[in-house]
Amino acid sequence: MQTYSYDQLFHFTYHMLVKIGCPKHDAKIASEVLLSADLRGVDSHGVARLSGYVRLWEKGRINPTPNVRVSYETPSTAVVDGDSGLGLVVAPFAMQVAIEKAKNVGTGWVSVKNSNHYGIAGYHAMMALEHDMIGISLTNASPLVAPTFSKERLLGTNPISVAIPAKDQPPFVADMATTTAANGKLEILQRKGLDTPTGWVQDKEGEPTTSANGVKNGGALLPLGGDREHGSHKGYALGSIVDIFSAVLSGANYGPWVPPFVAFLDPLPNLVGEGIGHFFGAMRVDAFRPADEFKSHMDNWITRFRSAETTPGNEKVLIPGDPERELEAIRMKDGIPLLDPVVKDLTELGERFGVKF
Amino acid sequence: MQTYSYDQLFHFTYHMLVKIGCPKHDAKIASEVLLSADLRGVDSHGVARLSGYVRLWEKGRINPTPNVRVSYETPSTAVVDGDSGLGLVVAPFAMQVAIEKAKNVGTGWVSVKNSNHYGIAGYHAMMALEHDMIGISLTNASPLVAPTFSKERLLGTNPISVAIPAKDQPPFVADMATTTAANGKLEILQRKGLDTPTGWVQDKEGEPTTSANGVKNGGALLPLGGDREHGSHKGYALGSIVDIFSAVLSGANYGPWVPPFVAFLDPLPNLVGEGIGHFFGAMRVDAFRPADEFKSHMDNWITRFRSAETTPGNEKVLIPGDPERELEAIRMKDGIPLLDPVVKDLTELGERFGVKF
Repeated sequence: MQTYSYDQLFHFTYHMLVKIGCPKHDAKIASEVLLSADLRGVDSHGVARLSGYVRLWEKGRINPTPNVRVSYETPSTAVVDGDSGLGLVVAPFAMQVAIEKAKNVGTGWVSVKNSNHYGIAGYHAMMALEHDMIGISLTNASPLVAPTFSKERLLGTNPISVAIPAKDQPPFVADMATTTAANGKLEILQRKGLDTPTGWVQDKEGEPTTSANGVKNGGALLPLGGDREHGSHKGYALGSIVDIFSAVLSGANYGPWVPPFVAFLDPLPNLVGEGIGHFFGAMRVDAFRPADEFKSHMDNWITRFRSAETTPGNEKVLIPGDPERELEAIRMKDGIPLLDPVVKDLTELGERFGVKF
Repeated sequence: MQTYSYDQLFHFTYHMLVKIGCPKHDAKIASEVLLSADLRGVDSHGVARLSGYVRLWEKGRINPTPNVRVSYETPSTAVVDGDSGLGLVVAPFAMQVAIEKAKNVGTGWVSVKNSNHYGIAGYHAMMALEHDMIGISLTNASPLVAPTFSKERLLGTNPISVAIPAKDQPPFVADMATTTAANGKLEILQRKGLDTPTGWVQDKEGEPTTSANGVKNGGALLPLGGDREHGSHKGYALGSIVDIFSAVLSGANYGPWVPPFVAFLDPLPNLVGEGIGHFFGAMRVDAFRPADEFKSHMDNWITRFRSAETTPGNEKVLIPGDPERELEAIRMKDGIPLLDPVVKDLTELGERFGVKF
């Protein structure tokens, strides 16, 4: 494990992206989105993925100079065509379209096709906050999740992020996979040689397992809830809604057709759409009531929940976004720790492209 | 257990509501909403609740002749003031406002204050389907749910419903509490003297329990996920989003201040808003792509998921809405079974108001 400053990692990411042909402005935004994952502790979605993006570019599956554009719109909606660009660039563009529409008619809703992995959902939702808007960010992803009663992987971990502004309190920021646990948590257990709790994974026969290698060995992640008795049909429904809003609305690939992130797996033949899909929403708070009134009540909501009496052994009730915000402050100050395999991977990547890590 | 036809129960409900002063048009809509719960198997939200609504009216907490109106709006948003009317009437009004806005600008989003319990979430979301729109319906509810790490009940079971039209396939209709299990399921286990699975309930000390009486005895329902290790912070975040969209946006009561449905409990002093809150959305499918194209892809989505290879011991993968639709067809034909205590309650109610059950 070695620790790097935000600026060091930003600098490397930026120059790597310029090296593969991204315009400087795009490389800057993409680096910011990618690094926000490392800062907020979603390590699996940060610089650890940089070489994955580069490999997709080498396969011709990422276009470094895309013509990202609105391909259809109404006053409150749009479809954005990402032109196979980096999701890290396409997503902020689309969220900005949603924000502009919200300025005009109260809310904006944008479904995106022909994109790639967009980093952490929360970054894009949080773009709405400075405008006193509620931000929503959804994306589909490569199929790793089995619906309730299904042996097959048909859905991605399909996250939901909702960011809500407050006044003196920090904002409410939910950012979560619609599975019991995200894939990144499995990887941590694999490295430590530990089992998973029940309800995270099923094996390739469709039987429940606690093996952290269950997914790697042909099994699947389970929807939030874990099994039918614990509400997995709800996690499955949520993941499905994310898939449909992101891809059936826009014309991207959905369900088992979503192209894999890893470059060594080819997309399925006979695709049903273009690239992967995202969905963004922006709602002006003052399209409902005066913004100051709303934000004061959010402060009251947050304060009441945070001060609730706790269950035995727990110190306080957290507000969604609290742990990530606290970690961001620490990592901005003390640096971002990277695991040895990630350091090795990035060093090799830099050597291959003549960018010093 | 006795079985009644839809028409019998509709007739009784309608005449009871007229008896307490509802205009005929309102009584008709409210009966339809209430009975749709019985048809779809959400028995806890159907005629079994009728006497509860009547008791709230007797307490002066439901206004039978409300002036339900839009109190604020932009092209794509509105706030509806329910004027303490029956949620069963206020909610369809508000959903209709969302639909009209979607016709004009692509989508419509309506937050509602000063309402009461609105029946099943799914009824209102499904109103969008005939217009080739996606419908969304959320509501907050009396606090029965403890956030992760909280001993206190701060949230309702706060359901999420999303209805999505298809072409030749029946629509996708998710309708779910954001808890591991809804309160109705606890009541069934209580009657049978059975324990709950893990992850449904905590006791009044905040410790996990499998007692079906856990909530009745001062404990709480748990957010979807059950505990931290199984993702309860995600269920808690979802329930919170429902609460904030329904009540902080509109000016209704939120969190622990949501007035209880049962008439024998008074609302808290120093309320933070008016009544309970709902949130509705309508998105025109053709505000994104041609409706026929969208619906054909939904058929493909549904067919692919329904035909997935199953896990051992399960016959097929269900699409959200499948079980409710199948039960609705059966109950429309064979009648709606009511438990003996419900029959007794409705008989007494009818006798008290001179309406024959």
